[in-house]
Amino acid sequence: MSAGPAAAVLIVGSEVLSAKVQDENGPFLARRLHELGVELAAIHVVPDRIDAIVEALLLERRRVGWTFTCGGVGPTHDDVTLPAVARALAVPLVRHPGMERVLREMHARHHSGAALPAAALRMADLPGGTELLGDPEFPTLVVSRVVMLPGVPSFLRHQFERVAHLLGGAPYHLVSLYFSWGEDLLAAPLAAVAESHPRVDVGSYPRFDRADHRVRVTVEGRDAAAVREASGAILAAVAPDALVRSEGLER
Amino acid sequence: MSAGPAAAVLIVGSEVLSAKVQDENGPFLARRLHELGVELAAIHVVPDRIDAIVEALLLERRRVGWTFTCGGVGPTHDDVTLPAVARALAVPLVRHPGMERVLREMHARHHSGAALPAAALRMADLPGGTELLGDPEFPTLVVSRVVMLPGVPSFLRHQFERVAHLLGGAPYHLVSLYFSWGEDLLAAPLAAVAESHPRVDVGSYPRFDRADHRVRVTVEGRDAAAVREASGAILAAVAPDALVRSEGLER
Repeated sequence: MSAGPAAAVLIVGSEVLSAKVQDENGPFLARRLHELGVELAAIHVVPDRIDAIVEALLLERRRVGWTFTCGGVGPTHDDVTLPAVARALAVPLVRHPGMERVLREMHARHHSGAALPAAALRMADLPGGTELLGDPEFPTLVVSRVVMLPGVPSFLRHQFERVAHLLGGAPYHLVSLYFSWGEDLLAAPLAAVAESHPRVDVGSYPRFDRADHRVRVTVEGRDAAAVREASGAILAAVAPDALVRSEGLER
Repeated sequence: MSAGPAAAVLIVGSEVLSAKVQDENGPFLARRLHELGVELAAIHVVPDRIDAIVEALLLERRRVGWTFTCGGVGPTHDDVTLPAVARALAVPLVRHPGMERVLREMHARHHSGAALPAAALRMADLPGGTELLGDPEFPTLVVSRVVMLPGVPSFLRHQFERVAHLLGGAPYHLVSLYFSWGEDLLAAPLAAVAESHPRVDVGSYPRFDRADHRVRVTVEGRDAAAVREASGAILAAVAPDALVRSEGLER
C-alpha cells in the first residue's frame, strides 16, 4: 500500500473486555479514518489499567503518527487514560487552567451554580503540553499527536470531527469484484496479482450463505490507476463467467 | 480481581481496520469467555501481516494462558495466520495428514468429487504440534494453547464451542447499582471502596441520555461474598435516595 498517514486506536475498555458494553468507537473510527484516507494500523482493546495503556501506546508510537485513545478520561478511580498517556510520553501530569475553566463552566451550566467536587477536577490534570483544540466548550485533548477522546460515543464523535482536518489523509480507491468461484480456485491468481502489484491491497472475503457470490475480492490503494490495473489483471486471470458483478471499476 | 484463567483475542483483520467488515468475533468471544469465567486481557485487531500477528502473539503469551486468533486460515495470499503462529512459537510449519484428509473430504462433499486445487492445501500446513480437536469433520486447531479459529462468524462459533470446556473458567458474580448522582459526586466513595476491596472490580459507566439513571456502577468478582460486601460498602457511602435500582444483590 502506498505511503500516507497512519493511526492506531486504543479502546480503554474493561467493560468491553468483560462484555458489559459493546464497543462502537472502534468501528466508528475505522470508518472515518478510512474515509479520510488515514491507514489504521491496529485497534487495541485494553483494560482500564495504566500499565496496559502505556504498553499499547509505546508499541504504536513506534510505527504510526497518530494515536487515538477512547475512554478513561472521566473523574472516577477507573479513569486512568490521562496519567497513562503522560507516563508513555514521559511528561508530568499537570493541572491545565484552561481545562479547569471548561469543567467549572460545564458544571455550572448543568448544576445551576453548585460547587464542582474536587474529584471532578482530576479531568483537568492533563499530560504536560496538551492542547485544547476544536470546540472551546468541549475541547479535544491532543498532545504529541495522541488524541485523548472520551468513551461516550456521541461525545467521541463530536470531539473527533473537530480535529479530523488535522490528519492530512489522502483518499483510497476501492474496486470490489464478486465471483462465483470459491477461494480454493481464486487463491493462485490472486496471489500472483498481489505479488506483482505491491502498490495495492488485494483482499479476499468468502461467503458461505445464499449470497449471489462466493467470494468478494477487493483491490484498494491510494493510486486510482494502480487499482484499475490490478483489478484488470485479476479479471484477465479468471474465466469471464466467474465474475458475478463488480463495483468501483468506472474510471 | 481474583485469580483464574486469562485469555487474549487477536482479530486478524485488515478488512476490519479498513472498515469493509464490522467484526463480530471479538464481541462474541468477549461474551462467551466472560460467561465461562475466563478473564479477557485484551483484544487486538491487527492487519493480515505475519509481523503484526507475531508481535501481538508474543506480547500476549507473556501474560495469558490462552490466545485465540480469528481469521486468516483460508487458502488465499492474505491468509497468513498459520505461518505467523508457527513463527511466534518457533516451530516449523508442517503438512498435517489429518487436516489434509479433512480438507479433501470437505472438498469432495461440496464439489462432488472434483480434485482439490493445490493452493487449498495451504490450509493443511499447520504449526508443528497442532492438535485437531472437537468436530472431526470441521476440527478446531490448537497448539500450545493458541486456538486458531476461522474468521467466518458461524464457523468460529462452532469451533469455539467445541473446545470451550478446556478453558477451566470459574464463574463471575456481578452486581449493578444504578444511581441518580453523576460521576463527579460518586468518584470519591467509589475510589475508597475500590481501594479497600481489591478482590473485586468496581466499574463506573455514566449516561448522558434520558435513562432512569446517570451512572451504572458495577461490582464484579469470582467471590460472591466479596462482591456483596463491596456493594454494601458503596451503598453505605452514598445517600440512600441516590440509588435508583440494583441488580444481582439478592441474598
